Amino acid sequence: MTAKNNFDNDKTAASRRITLDVNNMFAARLGGEYGIKKSQVADLKARTRELHYRIQEQKPGFTRLPFRQEKVITRIREMVEERAGDYDNFVVLGIGGSALGNIALQTALNDPYYNLNTGVREGYPRLFVPDNVDPERFAALLDFLDLERTVFNVISKSGSTAETMSLYLLAREAVAEEVGQGRVAEHFIATTSKDSGYLIEIAEREGYPCFSIPEDVGGRFSVLTPVGLVSAAFTGINISELLAGAADMAERCWEENIWQNPAYLHGALQYLAYQEGKRMSVMMPYSHALKDLADWYRQLWAESLGKEVNRKGERVNVGPTPIKALGATDQHSQVQLYMEGPFDKIITFIEVENHRRNLEMPKLYQDLDGLNYLGGHSLARLLNTEKQATERALTKRGRANATIKLPEVTAFTLGQLFYLLEMETAFVGELFNINTYNQPGVELGKNYTYGILGREGYQEKKEEFENWSEPDPDLIL
Amino acid sequence: MTAKNNFDNDKTAASRRITLDVNNMFAARLGGEYGIKKSQVADLKARTRELHYRIQEQKPGFTRLPFRQEKVITRIREMVEERAGDYDNFVVLGIGGSALGNIALQTALNDPYYNLNTGVREGYPRLFVPDNVDPERFAALLDFLDLERTVFNVISKSGSTAETMSLYLLAREAVAEEVGQGRVAEHFIATTSKDSGYLIEIAEREGYPCFSIPEDVGGRFSVLTPVGLVSAAFTGINISELLAGAADMAERCWEENIWQNPAYLHGALQYLAYQEGKRMSVMMPYSHALKDLADWYRQLWAESLGKEVNRKGERVNVGPTPIKALGATDQHSQVQLYMEGPFDKIITFIEVENHRRNLEMPKLYQDLDGLNYLGGHSLARLLNTEKQATERALTKRGRANATIKLPEVTAFTLGQLFYLLEMETAFVGELFNINTYNQPGVELGKNYTYGILGREGYQEKKEEFENWSEPDPDLIL
Repeated sequence: MTAKNNFDNDKTAASRRITLDVNNMFAARLGGEYGIKKSQVADLKARTRELHYRIQEQKPGFTRLPFRQEKVITRIREMVEERAGDYDNFVVLGIGGSALGNIALQTALNDPYYNLNTGVREGYPRLFVPDNVDPERFAALLDFLDLERTVFNVISKSGSTAETMSLYLLAREAVAEEVGQGRVAEHFIATTSKDSGYLIEIAEREGYPCFSIPEDVGGRFSVLTPVGLVSAAFTGINISELLAGAADMAERCWEENIWQNPAYLHGALQYLAYQEGKRMSVMMPYSHALKDLADWYRQLWAESLGKEVNRKGERVNVGPTPIKALGATDQHSQVQLYMEGPFDKIITFIEVENHRRNLEMPKLYQDLDGLNYLGGHSLARLLNTEKQATERALTKRGRANATIKLPEVTAFTLGQLFYLLEMETAFVGELFNINTYNQPGVELGKNYTYGILGREGYQEKKEEFENWSEPDPDLIL
Repeated sequence: MTAKNNFDNDKTAASRRITLDVNNMFAARLGGEYGIKKSQVADLKARTRELHYRIQEQKPGFTRLPFRQEKVITRIREMVEERAGDYDNFVVLGIGGSALGNIALQTALNDPYYNLNTGVREGYPRLFVPDNVDPERFAALLDFLDLERTVFNVISKSGSTAETMSLYLLAREAVAEEVGQGRVAEHFIATTSKDSGYLIEIAEREGYPCFSIPEDVGGRFSVLTPVGLVSAAFTGINISELLAGAADMAERCWEENIWQNPAYLHGALQYLAYQEGKRMSVMMPYSHALKDLADWYRQLWAESLGKEVNRKGERVNVGPTPIKALGATDQHSQVQLYMEGPFDKIITFIEVENHRRNLEMPKLYQDLDGLNYLGGHSLARLLNTEKQATERALTKRGRANATIKLPEVTAFTLGQLFYLLEMETAFVGELFNINTYNQPGVELGKNYTYGILGREGYQEKKEEFENWSEPDPDLIL
């Protein structure tokens, strides 16, 4: 089968590039009281150069991903080809970084009713990413699936994520019941770290095919590893184009001058806004296809930048809060607050120049004055007009915002976006001088869970959990 | 057809009540540095009584909704009955308050794969709520739908919402093409204000059946009007139970004592936390069924409380930012930030005591130490344990949180939740002394849109939109 999403292969790379417009972050547009001054950015120029070289030295794993993945791409493609027609359903068992990229890719690049509409799938399997241990949802999924025609990709870098392994145990049991123990291996793929954890051990015992997650790529930076690529390829997405887009952006981000590197410029502006009390960073795509990209970004930003201590060990408790919004929908939900509430947030719009589909409104009810202006306009024109109108109104009210513009939503532009936002996150982490790549804050909750459920070695945590002052009954209504 | 969701009609009302636990908002649990003191709440007691009587005087429209709706309930039920079997698809054309409640009800009370799995629908139609003017998504929806077997409920209180009317024009055209002009009326329902706007005019011309939105109920408070009830009833939800739940909570909220009224107590704590710099209010259900309830709340809270001026006309720019999160999923995305980032948010967990489905994990791989503790536990137990562990860990780190607990997700408990959160919003609006029920901040963007698209009377706004300083090309990368 050939991959489906080759919308624009004939265009030149430049015309397929995403752009970043930060005019509305600055005092010239917002008014001096609210905007950032160019001199503030200029003051970061020398530091940016220094941090640029620090990042180059660190070589974070994600910077390598757009390159030299030919072998793994080939292996994924071969598997998709070999198994063409075998499955009606592809299920990703993963959580957080092992799910959000998969969902973002699917929503962006496949039909909005892909799972429902057999006609648009062109023979590719449905994709399910339960992404939680919700019993009602997983039971309903198992009810729905014909397990004879289903494959599960179990994704966990550590190989011991409680949520993922729980769903795996349930899926393993249900598949064995349905197809018999001898044929279980046809229905599982493991994606995990090569050298550690239980998942690789299980995969070897069971004879599951395996894909590796590179050691130096953390979950939230792993969308362009097999974590995101395998499910994408199985649903017909052109994964080479994804990597080509990321490579194109990597080149643009390989630039020490803050005024010419979109990741550094936008990152610096976010950093400066945070220092001035704008603690929230809203990502608001005007495209349903990109709504789950905003969710992926939410993890990237929160987990990377929300930190208690800096690299010197000082307690800092930093971290902008990423917020997901969707245009035009949230004009009827959040924009009132963005326009009139505290000056405590910045907004990054994502605008799509050419929508892949369009519909023109008919000229009905031409005698109704407040309605007849719609006829003859297209839905794409309405959506993009609403974005520009909201942008203009926010700017007029002194609300800082920026726009990332995609010529079209394609694997190539999405690859650019992933890389841009990853590099921006890495850079902002350097500005805060924190460890961008760890997540020590989630250990305590995990350990309590282990303790309560009786995992060996966590008895002490169980006791700590239980050692908790009696609740005041007057505070329970 | 009988409504489906009668899970617990045999239980007593008390055992079906949701509870609010605010222990973890207070200094006794969080440590003096972080928590609220009981004396701060006590200081609000007299003011709360005063505001209670002010709300009683105002009689906001939503407070009436749980009562005296027998006639409309009967009419909705009759329509569902008469049209049983006529439709495979029910489409809500609405945005914001005319969509979010519908989606929340559907996700909470019907099967998680309701649209996909014919077996679980028991003859009820699929439900679609496009909730946006995204051309790719709406075109794909029209591709999928068999319009002969589809009904559209067009919902707009004002009767002139651009997004809703645009989708209506497109749907009207597509339906006429498919079924012929003479049979269009079988495929539309209008839900709108009785006395104003274009939608009522159109419905009369076309002969569509109409449902009314009461004048004194704003969009974001309208889920318990026909706005939310019609689509719910068409998918088999027991709408009387919804109202019964709301009525039960209305009674509990008819209490002037801040220590005994859950809406006032939680509202006051949110208000106090805001005053101390906790500008974000996270709602984090540990239940996939309630994830879209959090989205509904997001609109309610943001649009009601995000205001530039108070009732005295003073510029205040207030408004906590509501944030939607989902447990356990966001433990792998946002919890790192919640644990270690700035002390700038409070968290409201929603916990479900009895999940409607459950699955027990098999005892596989018992020789693998870090995995064998899972076998024998159920998924519901894992999910609820994770909630309690996260709650405990956050509290230990001084992060303020509260828990709303549902005995089970049912129409009755959902009705309680809607009412509780609405009354809480009304009360917090009074504490801020703002107009909770308007949304002046969205007008400017709307007017620019009208101007650009050539609506009569908005030429000036078009000129204002275009009168915009040239962008600095150096700020576009």
